[in-house]
Amino acid sequence: MFKLNDNYLKLPGSYLFSTIGKKVNAYAAANPDRKIIRLGIGDVTQPLAPAIIQALHGAVDEMGKAETFRGYAPDLGYDFLRNAIAENDYKSRGCDVSADEIFISDGAKCDSGNIQEIFSLDNKIAVCDPVYPVYVDSNVMAGRTGTYDSASETWSDVIYMPCTAENGFAPKLPSQTPDLIYLCFPNNPTGATITKAQLQEWVDYANKVGAVIIYDAAYEAYISEEDVPHSIYECEGARGCAIELRSFSKNAGFTGVRLGFTVVPKDLKCGEVALHSLWARRHGTKYNGAPYIVQRAGEAVYSEAGKAQLKDQIAYYMNNARYILNGLREAGYTVSGGVNAPYIWLKTPDGMTSWEFFDYLLERVNVVGTPGSGFGPNGEGYFRLTAFGSYENTVEAVDRIKGM
Amino acid sequence: MFKLNDNYLKLPGSYLFSTIGKKVNAYAAANPDRKIIRLGIGDVTQPLAPAIIQALHGAVDEMGKAETFRGYAPDLGYDFLRNAIAENDYKSRGCDVSADEIFISDGAKCDSGNIQEIFSLDNKIAVCDPVYPVYVDSNVMAGRTGTYDSASETWSDVIYMPCTAENGFAPKLPSQTPDLIYLCFPNNPTGATITKAQLQEWVDYANKVGAVIIYDAAYEAYISEEDVPHSIYECEGARGCAIELRSFSKNAGFTGVRLGFTVVPKDLKCGEVALHSLWARRHGTKYNGAPYIVQRAGEAVYSEAGKAQLKDQIAYYMNNARYILNGLREAGYTVSGGVNAPYIWLKTPDGMTSWEFFDYLLERVNVVGTPGSGFGPNGEGYFRLTAFGSYENTVEAVDRIKGM
Repeated sequence: MFKLNDNYLKLPGSYLFSTIGKKVNAYAAANPDRKIIRLGIGDVTQPLAPAIIQALHGAVDEMGKAETFRGYAPDLGYDFLRNAIAENDYKSRGCDVSADEIFISDGAKCDSGNIQEIFSLDNKIAVCDPVYPVYVDSNVMAGRTGTYDSASETWSDVIYMPCTAENGFAPKLPSQTPDLIYLCFPNNPTGATITKAQLQEWVDYANKVGAVIIYDAAYEAYISEEDVPHSIYECEGARGCAIELRSFSKNAGFTGVRLGFTVVPKDLKCGEVALHSLWARRHGTKYNGAPYIVQRAGEAVYSEAGKAQLKDQIAYYMNNARYILNGLREAGYTVSGGVNAPYIWLKTPDGMTSWEFFDYLLERVNVVGTPGSGFGPNGEGYFRLTAFGSYENTVEAVDRIKGM
Repeated sequence: MFKLNDNYLKLPGSYLFSTIGKKVNAYAAANPDRKIIRLGIGDVTQPLAPAIIQALHGAVDEMGKAETFRGYAPDLGYDFLRNAIAENDYKSRGCDVSADEIFISDGAKCDSGNIQEIFSLDNKIAVCDPVYPVYVDSNVMAGRTGTYDSASETWSDVIYMPCTAENGFAPKLPSQTPDLIYLCFPNNPTGATITKAQLQEWVDYANKVGAVIIYDAAYEAYISEEDVPHSIYECEGARGCAIELRSFSKNAGFTGVRLGFTVVPKDLKCGEVALHSLWARRHGTKYNGAPYIVQRAGEAVYSEAGKAQLKDQIAYYMNNARYILNGLREAGYTVSGGVNAPYIWLKTPDGMTSWEFFDYLLERVNVVGTPGSGFGPNGEGYFRLTAFGSYENTVEAVDRIKGM
């Protein structure tokens, strides 16, 4: 008789954003006349930039003609895209990453869920608290996290690194030694960043203790300040200890187009075995490449026209971020983030729990945000708003909150 | 100090099609004047049908306008596609499968690699021999297959079901009881099929011993004979024991577009727990949906125009299959498959090994096929050719082989 992977049964509740979706849909169904403004899930709202649309149409036309039709993509991605990434995201910043260290995928969510597969089940993970749920949940499913304590909402075998107002939402080095360290800067959900010198400390620490940093840089395009690193490979020694995850969802609006990539430097080894070869094997066996037309769209992100259009798109969202930050501050809220990231992290008023504030906002002013507690126990009492709405909706949502 | 998933290190050699690719590329580089004809990897060559191209362009236009832009897709796929599948692939054949039991993905390769995740590591798998390598390799990576014996080229904890000329390449029920049974009909690589009565025996057996059948029906569109089932849900009791994997790669030429789906009936349970909920959780946590434009392309597959155009496309490939079958028979080869499947399975001549014949064909007549031994020990002495080339190339390849 077959048996289930009972690690799945240990997962408390459902995936955070599925829960929010269900709550909002139920409210909308019960109140069809209300205009709900969604600043919850980090989903973009602006249409794809013209340069990207043009590239998509061009690639679709190629697929319709025998001479230019493309079947299976190369396992690890087309060279035209890997080269564009190596040149624009790394070489131009002085980072030593070559095209064949870049693995094209259908998004950073998949990669951040799958990357744990190439590591031993004995390895111990360290995560920020609060944290993007996929890092933890994918390790729960694999059986790497021990038992769940519902009182503290923590797993026995996970090392938590609190990110609190006291430390500026920047984690301290863990007291216990981890094998895998998940870091995300600019941070989801807090919108916080760390400086290059602070990130260098993490790289030095990982190299010292023999840990791998899984560095999620999905929001790097939103960095506006000078001293904030865009890639972990700006730090010395990172090629020996770090994997970097990147996305096209937030810098180019590809949430519904699906494209991302992961960098695994060939220097990153366990004994004689390069992690690069394991990740390549995983891609070759359990993945079949991102669609050709989508990879052409990714290439257009790096064209001159694409760059200019996406700079404007990011400025549009960051203008929203400023409006939220300033509006909530004026209304007396304690807020952070929103300067190098599209997320605004606010303290719930009057000692409300995160979910109480979620319900309160949804019912009182029909605005959807994300409860901080959904990201971990240290997110309790906080709430995330995103700058990814339209300007008009963002203004209306902030004004509604101010008017409460 | 971090450690690797050392199950990966147990994998012998690299993924079959990567090895073939490297060999062919090396030959092409050394012999740039030769015209190589590839009938190896099961990759299509005909351009996307006009109805699909039109749907893609339409969806791209939608993505370029704020009013119609789409961000994250619903976790499990858009209703328009799930409904079209439920109606056309199942309801029209009298199969009881509802839209919410259909999980849209980026292809059957990913699904066939990932599906094992929701089962216990203690579960024992049974596979055909020869077999599509992903079923075995993904279980090796998970640690479910025991140790590898390089003499017999088998894993200690895998139950092999030989598919040989003697049994018409249709496996017998296994002598040891498995927990998970991988079946693929029409079969890759042999091109063989089984009747509905034969498949019913498998369903009855699985229900009796408490096993789950993972049924790969990626090639169902190529079925030309009456009594061959297109879906396992044509069999009574399959909802209680079977998961079905389907692909748009072969019926609609989506190898470079990436779309597939998996059916997990809600009746399929282990105790009180529905596998449906586990697979939904996996999708929600580690996957982020197929691209909107690709799902619209999938919808067009079921339009009246799309159906007519794809019928012609399949007829085109099956005409190739007939040409290969007849040509090789005339040349004295022992061949099978090619009637309900785009694959022709031939016995290598003169007692050559599969790889000897691969090299011989590549070097002598510059034709690429797939060595049968790459699919398992019982594939030794066999060779797979695909009907997915252009008609002109197929004719030329067969004529070259006949002329040897």
